[in-house]
Parts: sequence; C-alpha cells; structure tokens
Amino acid sequence: MHIDHIGIAVKNLDEAVKTYEKILNTTCYKREVVEGEKVDTAFLQTGESKVELLGGTSPDSVINTYIEKRGEGIHHVAFEVDDIIAEMKRLKEEGFTLLNEKPKKGADNKLVAFLHPKGNHGVLVELCQSQNK
Amino acid sequence: MHIDHIGIAVKNLDEAVKTYEKILNTTCYKREVVEGEKVDTAFLQTGESKVELLGGTSPDSVINTYIEKRGEGIHHVAFEVDDIIAEMKRLKEEGFTLLNEKPKKGADNKLVAFLHPKGNHGVLVELCQSQNK
Repeated sequence: MHIDHIGIAVKNLDEAVKTYEKILNTTCYKREVVEGEKVDTAFLQTGESKVELLGGTSPDSVINTYIEKRGEGIHHVAFEVDDIIAEMKRLKEEGFTLLNEKPKKGADNKLVAFLHPKGNHGVLVELCQSQNK
Repeated sequence: MHIDHIGIAVKNLDEAVKTYEKILNTTCYKREVVEGEKVDTAFLQTGESKVELLGGTSPDSVINTYIEKRGEGIHHVAFEVDDIIAEMKRLKEEGFTLLNEKPKKGADNKLVAFLHPKGNHGVLVELCQSQNK
C-alpha cells in the first residue's frame, strides 16, 4: 500500500494547476472529467504519488458542496491497493463504514471505494486499484 | 520531490494510531513529542510516504486550535526536498509566502518550512529535508 494521491478541492482548476506546477516544479500530465462525479481533475506526479486537483463541473458537484462548507483544501487521501475487493472486506470486518459497497470507476482508470470520514478522524480515505493490474 | 507525509490533526492520538494501523495494515513505528510546537506525533509508513498523526499537548497547541476551527482532518502535506534553502528561495521568487524565513527543526529529524495556505488553494504545504543527507 502507498499514497496514490492526495485530492485537493479548488475553485479554479486552471489557476490551481499553475500554482501546483510551481510548487512541485513539474508539469500537469493529465486532465480528465469524471462525468459521474461532476468533477474535472488535473494530475501532477511527485515521486510515486500524485497531486489530484479537483474542480466541480456543476454547482451540485460534491467538490463545490465541499468548498461551500469547508473552503478549498485537501479533500481526500487515496491509498493504492493490490486487491480492492479484499481490502474493502478486510476494513469492513475491522468496523469501518464504506461509502460504496462495490468498487466504482474513478479518475485515472482506477477502481475506487471510500471510507466514511467519521471513522477515520475526519479524513475521507479512498482506496484505489489500477485496472491494468 | 515526493510526498514525505500527510499530517492529520486528531483529538486522541492513541485512538488515531489504532485506527490508522488498521487502515494501513501496519504498525506505528515512532512516537515523538515536538516541544516547540506543543505537538505529540505518531508515524506510520506507507510506501515511500508516512502518515503523521498529530495531537496537541496543550490547549494552545496549533493542533487544538485547528481542530476547534475545522474539526479533525488532514492538516498539511509535506514534500521532501533535497535542498530546502534552495527550494525556499525558488518558491519565494515564484511569489509564495513562507511562514518561516529560515528552516526550523521539525519532527523526524527534519528541517522544515511552511507555505501559507492562502497561496496554495487552502493547503498548508510543508517542505522538509532530512538532516542526515
């Protein structure tokens, strides 16, 4: 397991890309709209992990709702796992609450599942598995 | 550059250690009090990065102030750099606001510096450099 990415909720994705290109001293390598989540994403690589910038594509996007409540900032952290079904089962048995019972398709060609922040000291934890594994 | 750690502000460090040991399926490998910051820390390794759990040791700790305002959650992200002085100079010239003008001693035997969240879309960004490099 390792940190696949941290997801940062932003108001203006283009501006955020410029900011994090400067901080990480690298270039955004991918932009991708995730239609199901009404989210536009931009990825920057840093070591084995990515920074995923998240902008809402609609006022009712989860990202815009988050920003209204909490302001811009780190929205979630995602851990890459080898077998997401097995990890979901393991964590459910450990007493964690999964926000989706089955893995769903996320950005970056991943299968993803989320753990409810209330069980994780306020942190929205994503599990993800590359589909080409 | 890579993600050295994400810092998570928690109310009860012992409980948070148990929670993240389950999520990451690993054991906390270090506990350390950072006197200057009035913070108690616990580290868990995941890939090349760490999860740093942060509890306040005093009511006026920055961690307790943060939790009062925002609740528990991800407090900052830290990027490991080879030369913190050079990175601080580079980012200052790029227009970022540094919260400390000189590197200071942080947890885990690192030199650290912080970028103001307002310039980073709400994210408190830490730069850190191992002192044994």
